[in-house]
Amino acid sequence: MKQNFRIDGLQYANWSEKIFTQMREGNVDAVHVTIAYHENFRETVLNIEQWNRWFEQHSDLIMHAKFAEDVEAAKQSNRTAILFGFQNPSPIEDDIGLVEIVYTLGARFMQLTYNNQSLLATGCYESEDTGITRMGREVIKEMNRLGLVVDMSHSANTSTLQACDISERPVVITHANPKSWHPALRNKTDEVIKAIAQTGGMLGFSLYPHHLKDGSQCTLESFCDAIARTADLIGVEHLGLGSDLCQDQPDSIVEWMRSGRWTKQIDYGEGSAANAGFPPMPTWFQDNRDFGNVEQGLHRVGFNQSEVHAIMGNNWFKFFQNNFANKP
Amino acid sequence: MKQNFRIDGLQYANWSEKIFTQMREGNVDAVHVTIAYHENFRETVLNIEQWNRWFEQHSDLIMHAKFAEDVEAAKQSNRTAILFGFQNPSPIEDDIGLVEIVYTLGARFMQLTYNNQSLLATGCYESEDTGITRMGREVIKEMNRLGLVVDMSHSANTSTLQACDISERPVVITHANPKSWHPALRNKTDEVIKAIAQTGGMLGFSLYPHHLKDGSQCTLESFCDAIARTADLIGVEHLGLGSDLCQDQPDSIVEWMRSGRWTKQIDYGEGSAANAGFPPMPTWFQDNRDFGNVEQGLHRVGFNQSEVHAIMGNNWFKFFQNNFANKP
Repeated sequence: MKQNFRIDGLQYANWSEKIFTQMREGNVDAVHVTIAYHENFRETVLNIEQWNRWFEQHSDLIMHAKFAEDVEAAKQSNRTAILFGFQNPSPIEDDIGLVEIVYTLGARFMQLTYNNQSLLATGCYESEDTGITRMGREVIKEMNRLGLVVDMSHSANTSTLQACDISERPVVITHANPKSWHPALRNKTDEVIKAIAQTGGMLGFSLYPHHLKDGSQCTLESFCDAIARTADLIGVEHLGLGSDLCQDQPDSIVEWMRSGRWTKQIDYGEGSAANAGFPPMPTWFQDNRDFGNVEQGLHRVGFNQSEVHAIMGNNWFKFFQNNFANKP
Repeated sequence: MKQNFRIDGLQYANWSEKIFTQMREGNVDAVHVTIAYHENFRETVLNIEQWNRWFEQHSDLIMHAKFAEDVEAAKQSNRTAILFGFQNPSPIEDDIGLVEIVYTLGARFMQLTYNNQSLLATGCYESEDTGITRMGREVIKEMNRLGLVVDMSHSANTSTLQACDISERPVVITHANPKSWHPALRNKTDEVIKAIAQTGGMLGFSLYPHHLKDGSQCTLESFCDAIARTADLIGVEHLGLGSDLCQDQPDSIVEWMRSGRWTKQIDYGEGSAANAGFPPMPTWFQDNRDFGNVEQGLHRVGFNQSEVHAIMGNNWFKFFQNNFANKP
């Protein structure tokens, strides 16, 4: 009997037993969680230590996953599999040897940039996009060797196209939406979306209000219709969810995400001085218990049963199966 | 068909293709290598990065082993399995969360002390032996949970006896000899050797000249006779080798081992001002190609074939099988 998976391609919650329980209530089989925004290597290790405590304390609800088989094991034992990822290459500092170290510790996705220029590539908020750097080329090769997936969610256009060209394994955008639907700086051009698909990669549709048409007022129908139009563009097999759910986070965290330690000012990122905090989530997606709403919405815009399962998690599962192991 | 393993319980060489090739020539199936003496966490990670490079560059000669099955895989592919260990708890700093991190990165043995007092226990060179500390008790529990083996090779008497009492899994001495044979500060009393055996642990006989009767002039017969007398004391099933081979190391390394960063003076450790460097190895054990000499010596002092295989590696292999996995 074929199993169907419900997988979220990105979350960064203020983790608690409450949220882990909601994941179970929402039948979420796996979540890629962000464990670093601006953290250096040692700080990232502290975050992993915190996750290790949660894996011990809540071993009935969650487990650490490094491979697709772990996601299957989690499903079979009624737990949610947790996969680690970074939204910035800061954890590897300037040391390519750390790529294998963080892979061994469980990292499976790494963005080459957050919003700014990094040592590897250009972020989507810079005015000049100079593409993949010398170190970036080396790190992509090392990520390819190991099975650490290149994630370009917060990267600039040219950098993303170059990464697709350089990488010998699929490149993903774990959490963003098409610019054609909502022209936010963080959303992606059709050219980028097609390039990602050509590598065999995935686009995870984001539910973060700044990425949604009409923001917090976005309708479920509009969101699902954007997915349907993207399926027309690149095929349903490259599509999944990457909710970007930042549940229960205090606004101090969005400041950390945006400003890190790189500025003494406040950088409002996708927000503004008048709207500086986390925006409210749409009524139909408040937390992990609401994935069923998205599933129903996908049916209503015309996807068949198998396509809905693919988007809700089977595509991500297949991607995990093919892309987390060392290069043969 | 039963396989027989040749395993060395400790080496700290100046690693090179030459030495890896000699391991193959000597049919050495597995070696526990020291990757930290005084290194803090980040420095230990740099040492692992260096090993990762060697695993890539010399993938025909060596491979990283985390479990007994990896030792079998190495043997089947004509390679030497490399297991990581620390001679000091400095890599976990003052952070118990790092125990799981270093375990995940492959650490399988950790001494609770080098020669000095540590955060966990007392080293064999201190004048007062105050036993296992508060943190030491917590760390032993965490090591037991994970399958990181408690190694008391450089620890003081009371600390070792207390560790045997506190630990719920076997405690080992990877590299030392009986004090009754050669009364060096680093060698072990019969009381300690019996306590180790009672935990199900192992004693790895050292070939480091300061641990040998008559030093570099020690005869093979004398060495093998010491093993035979210890078999009479605790049974052959607890005995193995831990050569402490420090091949090709410059004398600056023995200074680092002894003095680290804890003194501005020179600490001569087991040596002296007149004999400050590495002592010459016995003629019959110069490098990894000489394990056959020890095997012959064991036969000559009266061990039968099965006992010789047990001491040469099968005991260590069985120990690896039972003690590296997380506590069920």
